[in-house]
Amino acid sequence: MSELICAVRVTPVAFRDLPLLNSVGVHEPFALRTIVEVVTAGGQYGLGETYGDEPHLRRIEKAAAALVGTDVFDLHEMQRRVIVSLADDRQVGGHGMAGMVTTSSTGDRVLSPFEVAALDLQGKITGRPVSDLLGGAVRDRVSFTGYLFYKWAGHPGQEDDAWGAALDPDGLVRQARKMIDEYGFSSIKLKGGVFPPDQEVAAIRELRKAFPSTPLRLDPNAVWTVPTSIKVGQDLEGVLEYLEDPTAGIPGMGEVAREVPMPLATNMCVVAFDHLKPAVQQGAVGVVLSDHHFWGGLRRSQSLAAICDTFDLGLSMHSNSHLGISLAAMVHLASATPNLDYTCDTHWPWKRPEDDVVVPGALGFENGAVKVPTEPGLGVELDRDALARMHQQYLDSGIRNRDDTGYMRSVNPEWKAPLW
Amino acid sequence: MSELICAVRVTPVAFRDLPLLNSVGVHEPFALRTIVEVVTAGGQYGLGETYGDEPHLRRIEKAAAALVGTDVFDLHEMQRRVIVSLADDRQVGGHGMAGMVTTSSTGDRVLSPFEVAALDLQGKITGRPVSDLLGGAVRDRVSFTGYLFYKWAGHPGQEDDAWGAALDPDGLVRQARKMIDEYGFSSIKLKGGVFPPDQEVAAIRELRKAFPSTPLRLDPNAVWTVPTSIKVGQDLEGVLEYLEDPTAGIPGMGEVAREVPMPLATNMCVVAFDHLKPAVQQGAVGVVLSDHHFWGGLRRSQSLAAICDTFDLGLSMHSNSHLGISLAAMVHLASATPNLDYTCDTHWPWKRPEDDVVVPGALGFENGAVKVPTEPGLGVELDRDALARMHQQYLDSGIRNRDDTGYMRSVNPEWKAPLW
Repeated sequence: MSELICAVRVTPVAFRDLPLLNSVGVHEPFALRTIVEVVTAGGQYGLGETYGDEPHLRRIEKAAAALVGTDVFDLHEMQRRVIVSLADDRQVGGHGMAGMVTTSSTGDRVLSPFEVAALDLQGKITGRPVSDLLGGAVRDRVSFTGYLFYKWAGHPGQEDDAWGAALDPDGLVRQARKMIDEYGFSSIKLKGGVFPPDQEVAAIRELRKAFPSTPLRLDPNAVWTVPTSIKVGQDLEGVLEYLEDPTAGIPGMGEVAREVPMPLATNMCVVAFDHLKPAVQQGAVGVVLSDHHFWGGLRRSQSLAAICDTFDLGLSMHSNSHLGISLAAMVHLASATPNLDYTCDTHWPWKRPEDDVVVPGALGFENGAVKVPTEPGLGVELDRDALARMHQQYLDSGIRNRDDTGYMRSVNPEWKAPLW
Repeated sequence: MSELICAVRVTPVAFRDLPLLNSVGVHEPFALRTIVEVVTAGGQYGLGETYGDEPHLRRIEKAAAALVGTDVFDLHEMQRRVIVSLADDRQVGGHGMAGMVTTSSTGDRVLSPFEVAALDLQGKITGRPVSDLLGGAVRDRVSFTGYLFYKWAGHPGQEDDAWGAALDPDGLVRQARKMIDEYGFSSIKLKGGVFPPDQEVAAIRELRKAFPSTPLRLDPNAVWTVPTSIKVGQDLEGVLEYLEDPTAGIPGMGEVAREVPMPLATNMCVVAFDHLKPAVQQGAVGVVLSDHHFWGGLRRSQSLAAICDTFDLGLSMHSNSHLGISLAAMVHLASATPNLDYTCDTHWPWKRPEDDVVVPGALGFENGAVKVPTEPGLGVELDRDALARMHQQYLDSGIRNRDDTGYMRSVNPEWKAPLW
């Protein structure tokens, strides 16, 4: 018996996003994603979701064409064909992270949505949730983190959004309260790298006061020097559960790691299998923030988890702005990863509920956690009307590459990426 | 849909073995294995095979009882229950390697046959070969190595066996020719550690003369000192593709590795996930010889493969005396392991064809390779008459623990394990 892929549909979509600030600028009014539908000769379909940047979209389209005729259980052959399809790729960019991460593996980034779609199909074919194909869920709910951002009150020229401004500690505490009230998160991450480090340290201290027992994380996206990172890490002893990417690169992270009391986490200096050996050798990181979108899908993310377990590295999960297919994939992966040591990141609260491509109702937050779907496959179904609407939104948006810096400069022409 | 385990049958068996010499003595007239049958409520069965030593058999029986009621897709829950079943285990031994390896993980050793049986069942339930459940076969045939042993002409008090004596280079060359004629192997491994190193070096040189282009390996099972290992390694520059476990322990292997030109392989100093970090840190090994019997089954062996790939370690496969269930499992695993850099070991030629528990015909050698079964599951079926016969052989043999040393001393009371 074989289940051959007879078609792969690739659809770029855009969904409304809020003016969230980060070290490279500010989120544009729309975030981009690419939706992948893998269709078998038997007429079933599997879903994957990935970045929407144009060079990536072009690579995805090429890989999609190359995958027709493969068996959905033959993940190794799918990987081989993806790599072959990239052989003459000369495009630059398409990392999906607005320049914050540029060293992830192109092969793994392109493979990811197809692998997820294949596992979705394997699950539908065998009547099993994806978590079962990953060795079985060790938890029936996956806990996420309340992911705070400094933000403007609204996009320039638009009305204030429901979250309002958060440009100081009070604004962040207010944001955290709203997010925790609505979603029930029991841990908090602050996206930093926006204001000078002492202001962000002060914000963390206010969050600690407001939420005395809630685990806190701070992520300045590597815009601090080694000495600044060491100073902040030492200042926040006993306050942060981990400090995320304070400085750039494995050697610098190693220097910081030796001087600060908390583990360093990363989704910037260890973003591909090639980075693990030097990171381990240099003791650069204590926690890897996995992300199936750039680690080659769910099975390869499980390999990463096994490596973390074997080399005494903690494991948590990174998130970009994403839709429901990615959330389902993250939840299945997290559920079947025994050594997931921390709550996972998600941008979910920043997305409007009606902006999605999956039929509503399959995924929901309760006490900061999402119940692992038990239906066959990922447990989410495509809403084709919504897909068409969001594809039109993509066409209308005019955005073809995520460009937080360009958007920031359209508002503030003098803006420069910080280094403190 | 769930497929619950309703019964697990555990049957120790014995099969005839030949007087193969090694560093701890000589193989007894019978080798022991334990056959595991996992039965679902739906009436299907899955097969696993493991060591037969008594303490291991007792642990397997306890774990078997604990697994009733689990879903065959829930490998994580099976692993959890196996670990729990071992919590009050106070037995010593049962490593299945006659004392040569005593540091593998008890949890992983006990889990292995159940995990293989669960994958066999998953395959039967979904209509897929096990290789598909491991990500797809990247090769349709798995190549093995001609595994030479110094040996007596026959067991004491019995007629000479078909292989005759091999106690010098000529005998080994003769043995190699017979084995290659019959099986078509295109690589050769010599089990050493039996005679002083210069004699074994001379044997390797004779094999090189007789088979000028055939990759050669030598495995003295860690009975050489560091200086001896370095000398042999340097003497055999350009002759061996790898030198296997010349000396004991990760630190010693690290010392040797720095001084010899060929990679060092191991199935003795890196036999559990805990050993990988120190081995990498000390640069102790170049090739890990995986073995699903002590690495916790096929999925965890794939994790090992991913680790080897990530940390620039070569990968090959170790073998004990085994039957057809293990051969099928080894073939599926090897077929779905892209970074399998060398041909796999097997003791298969040393076993009589009629001594097996699987229905004949599913597995065969051609040009040194076994075709990967494409039937659902492992692709081998239990021969219940053969199982009963071999269980009776186990009962009659009187052997309850593999004891190469005791058997050697029954022949040569003065015999002592060597250290050169």
